Amino acid sequence: MTMHSAPMEKTIRALLDAKKYQTLKDVLVTWEPADLAAVFEEMGEERTPLLFRLLPKETAAETFAELQPESQELLIRGFSDRELHELVNELYVDDAADLVEEMPANVVKRILAQADPQMRKEINEILRYPENSAGSIMTTEYVSLRPEMTIAEAIQRIRRTGVDKETIYTCYVTKERKLLGTVSVKDMLLAADENTRVSEIMDENVISVSTLTDQEEVAKMLSKYNFLALPVVDADGRMVGIVTFDDAMDVMVEETTEDIEKMAAIVPTEKPYLRSNAWDLFKHRIPWLMLLMVSATFTGMIITGFESALASQVVLTAFIPMLMDTGGNSGSQSSVTVIRALSLGELDFADLPRVVWKESQTALLCGLALAMICFGKIMLVDRLLLGNDGITVLTAFVVCFTMAVTVLIAKLIGCTLPMCARKLGFDPAVMASPFITTIVDALSLLVYFSIARSLLFT
Amino acid sequence: MTMHSAPMEKTIRALLDAKKYQTLKDVLVTWEPADLAAVFEEMGEERTPLLFRLLPKETAAETFAELQPESQELLIRGFSDRELHELVNELYVDDAADLVEEMPANVVKRILAQADPQMRKEINEILRYPENSAGSIMTTEYVSLRPEMTIAEAIQRIRRTGVDKETIYTCYVTKERKLLGTVSVKDMLLAADENTRVSEIMDENVISVSTLTDQEEVAKMLSKYNFLALPVVDADGRMVGIVTFDDAMDVMVEETTEDIEKMAAIVPTEKPYLRSNAWDLFKHRIPWLMLLMVSATFTGMIITGFESALASQVVLTAFIPMLMDTGGNSGSQSSVTVIRALSLGELDFADLPRVVWKESQTALLCGLALAMICFGKIMLVDRLLLGNDGITVLTAFVVCFTMAVTVLIAKLIGCTLPMCARKLGFDPAVMASPFITTIVDALSLLVYFSIARSLLFT
Repeated sequence: MTMHSAPMEKTIRALLDAKKYQTLKDVLVTWEPADLAAVFEEMGEERTPLLFRLLPKETAAETFAELQPESQELLIRGFSDRELHELVNELYVDDAADLVEEMPANVVKRILAQADPQMRKEINEILRYPENSAGSIMTTEYVSLRPEMTIAEAIQRIRRTGVDKETIYTCYVTKERKLLGTVSVKDMLLAADENTRVSEIMDENVISVSTLTDQEEVAKMLSKYNFLALPVVDADGRMVGIVTFDDAMDVMVEETTEDIEKMAAIVPTEKPYLRSNAWDLFKHRIPWLMLLMVSATFTGMIITGFESALASQVVLTAFIPMLMDTGGNSGSQSSVTVIRALSLGELDFADLPRVVWKESQTALLCGLALAMICFGKIMLVDRLLLGNDGITVLTAFVVCFTMAVTVLIAKLIGCTLPMCARKLGFDPAVMASPFITTIVDALSLLVYFSIARSLLFT
Repeated sequence: MTMHSAPMEKTIRALLDAKKYQTLKDVLVTWEPADLAAVFEEMGEERTPLLFRLLPKETAAETFAELQPESQELLIRGFSDRELHELVNELYVDDAADLVEEMPANVVKRILAQADPQMRKEINEILRYPENSAGSIMTTEYVSLRPEMTIAEAIQRIRRTGVDKETIYTCYVTKERKLLGTVSVKDMLLAADENTRVSEIMDENVISVSTLTDQEEVAKMLSKYNFLALPVVDADGRMVGIVTFDDAMDVMVEETTEDIEKMAAIVPTEKPYLRSNAWDLFKHRIPWLMLLMVSATFTGMIITGFESALASQVVLTAFIPMLMDTGGNSGSQSSVTVIRALSLGELDFADLPRVVWKESQTALLCGLALAMICFGKIMLVDRLLLGNDGITVLTAFVVCFTMAVTVLIAKLIGCTLPMCARKLGFDPAVMASPFITTIVDALSLLVYFSIARSLLFT
């Protein structure tokens, strides 16, 4: 039973206007932070601080972490120092670090001034790491155990320190901060004897990531191994934090959106669509549009080069859009398939020969099928039905032969370019439809006119 | 420290050939099931069964669940009834149900014959639900507690039954199978008094899904609320299972791949790229290619309609590809952005006016910028540098004016069609680049020739 926020908003507004704060408290406490945040976003500047103060401390912190930066800033500016102090120290360290990254300098100053020394130290630790690295998305709040502890002692420790940890279910066994193994609460609960030492039941085959591992790689590993969290170790092998599955899910969504935007020739942005104004959208869209438009000059040059030939056979012009579109579509099918397989880790550069062979076969099948249907279509629809007498069997043959060759070229370029981009260290997603369309356009016109010249103009 | 499988494969082959089975056992046991499965896939038909038999029971089951259907079938065909019995009953129910769905009928018969009665009943329960529903991806293995239990009794129950459950960390409090609330192991461990009753600490504001909820919706909810698992209830409000976060991650990846394929005019498939042969690829790619090719007939007709005009002004032809590509790219930027926002739940149909307004402004900005640069490019590059004397200021104006109008049309169509598709219950992802390009092509040519006719041919 998920909630729909529109009727909820109405209820809240009514209760607020009637000043029924106790009722409001009772209602708000039944909701999840994600839903509270969604409703707060719609409530407007005056109401949000009031509502926020009605939440229990812990829920307030979790809801705050789910808000958009603009709303967070607004709330903080309205907070007294005492309120800010309470909030900041209740936040999980990774959320606090995110907040510090998003806020303007004067707000950051206030936040850090109100953070407890330990919190401030840990925030600064996370901020040291480059953007999109494991270090930058990890949290330093995990449960660490010593190997010589018994299970009973370990559980005591969890009970004592667990309340502030992002997950207690996987615990990390360390000695002098070196990571020795992991032990799950499940293993501890299910163990026969609570005097067993942690070192005896811990799993020593720990999979960990370095602070500099790319966040996308971390997310992929969490998803592959179905772990609740992955430990992060620094260059000296010391454990510094964990990345939890919920952050990995967010990273996956974010990275996929970025890939999709790149494939559509958009410079990626982290702002949600409705929060971007026209100027933002313009800035992220115009670079590729401009580049692709200018590179279409080549296509224009090719047509100009055949101008006199075209003037005598204008009927050829009518098929240019169909040839270009089919080439573009064929190429984008291959490139997008390959880009996705690369990003899911199903392919790497060593598979290039297999991919090229598979795509060549597919291209031949597609090319032949399209050429045959196209031939039928031209002769029946264009020539007979629409009565275009300029079309001869030879014209139709030229068009269909070009079609087959174009599909082959498009699919080969479509699969090869993303793989080479990956090999050279570029992002394969950029080698998607728009880019490949531009190349395929030029090549298909060259093929078209060359074939036409040798068959029609002799 | 993630592993790279190529050197591992070499080690395994060497140990197998030397028949050092104990060493192999010691090596294999240090790996995660996902890595074992990846190596097994590469080992070939003869070696895999041998390796598989070296694994401990539980690891064997988890590794089996990670294998591709082809390898699973091969292994099962080699198993004795006793081996199959052990494996099937060690699998998690949801993995067993997946297996039954994938295998051919005679294998399924053997599997069900070897499953314990309880297992068989639960497999059949899951198979009853439609594909891609919450019921079809859930597992029936969760911890259920009674409200009157004390925490100590609850923990006893988890210790007794937890070993076979997919997650023990969130427990479900039920009475006569009705779901009353949830309680986490964290809350139980951190509770001050272990004689507290479960009913006192449970969270009664349970978010659940129905058996028929779409799997994509379930995945989105798990990611939104950062839950470990979501309970699934039937039409009578009785709890029947849970969906865990790791399955949700897989669903998210799968659904996104499907969206991306649709956006690239491919009929979606669940087979990984390298396992699809050319015929599979052909079947999934040709329908849209065919449809889009045939619909390009309209573009051809438009050009044919202006044939005589074109014959006198062939220079206009040279700009057709640039206009079509820029239109296509502009449209696909808008459509892909809107499709992604729809699929992330950031937009719904009610936002249409806001979206249209935003896109119109962006289109004007992009259109003006492109038109200006294009004008400069035509006059400098095409006319001066390339010496194309057929180009006049008026021609350049016609092209650039068309460009601006095309960008506007493309962006409006690009944002409107996906939202209308969603409203009408179709999948918005189909309304992406290729489809929109075809429409925009025809419209941009109409605009081009109309403007040209009124300005150039008078």
